[in-house]
Amino acid sequence: MIHEKYFELAKEQEVYLSRKNKKSDFYNGIYDRYEYPVLTREHVPLTWRYDLNKETNPFFMERLGINAVMNSGAIYMNGKYYLVVRIEGNDRKSFFGVAVSDNGVDNFRFADRPVLLPDTCPEETNVYDMRLTRHEDGYIYGVFCSESKDTSVNDLSAAVAAAGIVRTKDLVNWERLDNLKTLRSPQQRNVCLHPEFVDGKYAFYTRPMDDFIETGSGGGIGFGLSESIEHAVIDEERMTSIRRYHTITESKNGAGATPIKTDRGWIHIAHGVRNTAAGLRYVIYAFATALDDPGRVIAEPGGLLIGPRGGERVGDVSNVVFTNGAIVNDRDEVFIYYASSDTRMHVATTTLDKLIDYVFNTPADALRSVDCVKQRIGLIDGNLELLGKTNLPGLRGE
Amino acid sequence: MIHEKYFELAKEQEVYLSRKNKKSDFYNGIYDRYEYPVLTREHVPLTWRYDLNKETNPFFMERLGINAVMNSGAIYMNGKYYLVVRIEGNDRKSFFGVAVSDNGVDNFRFADRPVLLPDTCPEETNVYDMRLTRHEDGYIYGVFCSESKDTSVNDLSAAVAAAGIVRTKDLVNWERLDNLKTLRSPQQRNVCLHPEFVDGKYAFYTRPMDDFIETGSGGGIGFGLSESIEHAVIDEERMTSIRRYHTITESKNGAGATPIKTDRGWIHIAHGVRNTAAGLRYVIYAFATALDDPGRVIAEPGGLLIGPRGGERVGDVSNVVFTNGAIVNDRDEVFIYYASSDTRMHVATTTLDKLIDYVFNTPADALRSVDCVKQRIGLIDGNLELLGKTNLPGLRGE
Amino acid sequence: MIHEKYFELAKEQEVYLSRKNKKSDFYNGIYDRYEYPVLTREHVPLTWRYDLNKETNPFFMERLGINAVMNSGAIYMNGKYYLVVRIEGNDRKSFFGVAVSDNGVDNFRFADRPVLLPDTCPEETNVYDMRLTRHEDGYIYGVFCSESKDTSVNDLSAAVAAAGIVRTKDLVNWERLDNLKTLRSPQQRNVCLHPEFVDGKYAFYTRPMDDFIETGSGGGIGFGLSESIEHAVIDEERMTSIRRYHTITESKNGAGATPIKTDRGWIHIAHGVRNTAAGLRYVIYAFATALDDPGRVIAEPGGLLIGPRGGERVGDVSNVVFTNGAIVNDRDEVFIYYASSDTRMHVATTTLDKLIDYVFNTPADALRSVDCVKQRIGLIDGNLELLGKTNLPGLRGE
Repeated sequence: MIHEKYFELAKEQEVYLSRKNKKSDFYNGIYDRYEYPVLTREHVPLTWRYDLNKETNPFFMERLGINAVMNSGAIYMNGKYYLVVRIEGNDRKSFFGVAVSDNGVDNFRFADRPVLLPDTCPEETNVYDMRLTRHEDGYIYGVFCSESKDTSVNDLSAAVAAAGIVRTKDLVNWERLDNLKTLRSPQQRNVCLHPEFVDGKYAFYTRPMDDFIETGSGGGIGFGLSESIEHAVIDEERMTSIRRYHTITESKNGAGATPIKTDRGWIHIAHGVRNTAAGLRYVIYAFATALDDPGRVIAEPGGLLIGPRGGERVGDVSNVVFTNGAIVNDRDEVFIYYASSDTRMHVATTTLDKLIDYVFNTPADALRSVDCVKQRIGLIDGNLELLGKTNLPGLRGE
Repeated sequence: MIHEKYFELAKEQEVYLSRKNKKSDFYNGIYDRYEYPVLTREHVPLTWRYDLNKETNPFFMERLGINAVMNSGAIYMNGKYYLVVRIEGNDRKSFFGVAVSDNGVDNFRFADRPVLLPDTCPEETNVYDMRLTRHEDGYIYGVFCSESKDTSVNDLSAAVAAAGIVRTKDLVNWERLDNLKTLRSPQQRNVCLHPEFVDGKYAFYTRPMDDFIETGSGGGIGFGLSESIEHAVIDEERMTSIRRYHTITESKNGAGATPIKTDRGWIHIAHGVRNTAAGLRYVIYAFATALDDPGRVIAEPGGLLIGPRGGERVGDVSNVVFTNGAIVNDRDEVFIYYASSDTRMHVATTTLDKLIDYVFNTPADALRSVDCVKQRIGLIDGNLELLGKTNLPGLRGE
Repeated sequence: MIHEKYFELAKEQEVYLSRKNKKSDFYNGIYDRYEYPVLTREHVPLTWRYDLNKETNPFFMERLGINAVMNSGAIYMNGKYYLVVRIEGNDRKSFFGVAVSDNGVDNFRFADRPVLLPDTCPEETNVYDMRLTRHEDGYIYGVFCSESKDTSVNDLSAAVAAAGIVRTKDLVNWERLDNLKTLRSPQQRNVCLHPEFVDGKYAFYTRPMDDFIETGSGGGIGFGLSESIEHAVIDEERMTSIRRYHTITESKNGAGATPIKTDRGWIHIAHGVRNTAAGLRYVIYAFATALDDPGRVIAEPGGLLIGPRGGERVGDVSNVVFTNGAIVNDRDEVFIYYASSDTRMHVATTTLDKLIDYVFNTPADALRSVDCVKQRIGLIDGNLELLGKTNLPGLRGE
């Protein structure tokens, strides 16, 4: 017998799930933000959390609670917007669930069951942060982080990160391939498969790491080729967008959404990390690589594209925005899905034209304060001239 | 002459103190949350903070400000709900104050004066986090952290943590006993006295530590026996609930509220800690130990029982919920007192029946993502069958 | 041609800039807080961020975004309140901008252009946290942190901090002098120039550091003299207010606003730092030094003067309040400008009389919990006597 509380909660949840989203009053001309997150733990079906049976669950308790939903791969299919969401249980283990929306900004609904990945790595403890790539070989690939206990050191928290690979045609049936091997990098996280063959090979964006948390001497987002996808192996990793002193990528950076193809180049929406007195700060930035060499950076706007704002600033891991999925629909509208503070999913929307304008016309980072000021005064002087103002020596209004 | 501002503030404070609390709309079937904290620094009497004398305090300034109230021991006495609160002055030193309420969820009032502990440890700098135990020997014991400067190293911040012990019969007069000695653990924090004799001895839950912040090789919550309570000494510490990789206790765990006796076993409401890019995250979890061996774990639900939510997430030490006190009243209602982010006190209420159901019927942590997914799909399949749904292969609504 | 969106945003911004500020309902008798920040990134002129030209910026995009405004030097000039604000671009580089208000609490407006410092240090990457000093030699000095890449170690994030010095008479034209040399301290941050000659020399408050983040063996706020200001060199640094175990200055402390001269001594509004499980916590405190020896502490109230509250707690670097500027106007009103969480600027207002009362009549830190309780019970007992209460042994209401 179904517990009567189920129907009450299901009704409340339906009101929540069907709430219309709307653009917030944030303005920067580059993208729009939205009032509400697109996915929270409250979106997860009640059937995933509660035992509905009144006999076995008389108090209608959550038996397997959900702690957070975050870092989601994204893909546009049959006119709908699909997210492969990282869901974290109350037990800290992450797994994947598929959610779909008709318009990309609200009414996301989860499939009936989470994704049960083939259990091919006995030592694998956790999986998360899947990048979805519709490859020209006909498959949709999911590349994700496969994390295992590091048994080589006597530290209970030590872990090893590798890139797991699955493929599907329908987001329902998933075939698991070998984990990516990178011959020159002991660990990998934030790996993303390029949608096209490069020199007839599968191309990956990587993030070489010396150990689990620290990227060590890893200089940024790598790029490497593999003959095979079933047994992917990368030898050399060339650097694309690199870490730089006193920029938003000083501590780490990594690939985000699968690159978006445009007339001008491949547009990447990635993340950069710096350290603060209160821990790491993750922001989202963008760059472009060449159409004829998707590992070569041809444009990189200075600074962040999206930083945490308002309620996004706080969560299970505060001061984080992170993306690993974006969608371009058939009207060239762009949907950047990003998580805030490892807790919930948001969307920022723009258009392909705007994104191109942003990436190719935003000045690069001038790297030194004084040069940044000169850059800005150049902008100001142009504006003041346009405004018909003379070169005022003093303070405004004096 | 009393400053007129005193009467104005006292009136305002009375409105604040007498505000009725109410259950929030949070639901998980396990416990209820409340709209308001039960104790904040605003609850501390004006007489503890202001010099009321207009001659010596013409501007009616706070002379000894209060920064925060947090981690409180709890006990039910004469039909009332008593908290022994950790109060932190603006000067960062903590001390204890007794607050009492008639219903356990609002209208807590502090005693006229804070607790002046006998000054038996000249090197003791700070005291905090008292667990209250009504022991079958007839006393109420308070076991707390006694912190001293570590003078063995040349580091201004180095400290040593030990377990201080006091006893009382009325929460007014406190007798201080020797600090607990643990022969095999250099430091101790989060120590809690078991309410009953075990093998005729005093039994303590401990948390062995190698140094002040790190628990080092300490594997979890220990359990040890002492012949004497006046001069408590523990030799062997057996492990009860242990730290485990990629769980909510990965970095640390520790005893919380004094264990609650039930027909099924002793129920423990403890805390677990994991590391994040933004520092440590403290959550509350539960487990049970055997009636005939309170050091042996017989049930441990997977994951967290209480995690920080909403405004609880932020404070002097953000991303923390912590408990060291719970009350079962004479109607078997349970009051879990917990602090959020080292800043304020909350209550979560449930019943003994619910708590038992939660602890004994919530699945254990399956420890690997794929096994957690299988566990969850088991739950889902049962629910879908109950809902009369067939085994849908695709996404909901397709 | 100017983009039409400019006029729309300019109108909205004007509404925001001209909003009246008001005192919040915070009360401690020492100072008032205000409802709104006095400066946010939204105060920065549109001309500094957008290219106004519709031809070159058809989408009216932010071309050089602003991430935050914070740590501002302050000076009272011609009856107006000037801040030299640390502005951080989206690219993480900081620079200075001058903002002015008629009343010190709202309607701050930026000058037409940011400050372009003379580019005298080719290795200088970043500049921030200027202390403004109207010196008796006739100049207004700005002492700020000049940060460079540390190329001596193989660590991309390694940096070196030094004290840069500029001077001006009008906040428009800035002359850059040599960076301060401290012969016995490899690095310096939070340096502040004393307004008067001491023994005929220029006097600096310093903060000796062993490396960039850690203050190392540096014991607190130093004080040193230099013959020259054009080529400032300090040999000996005496300690003034020092770091102390288990106080608000345990991890670090540093000079804040330029000291305020009073009949009783120089009043300093500084910052103290402690470590927490969630990173460093910065609070503001005060102390006084002797008129005849501004390096000798004569009063130091225990604990914090201002700690982060409410929305101040969260930002790019959470759990921080920080001041490097205060103003005393011609009516002896005091305006303490402080940033919260490296994101926005606030003001706290008081009077010189109140500030003197606070600094000289607030008890010093008793350093041990038990002594702090005795101190507080002394206050309470005086109050209870005044209230005509007898020495109640039990709990209130019993």
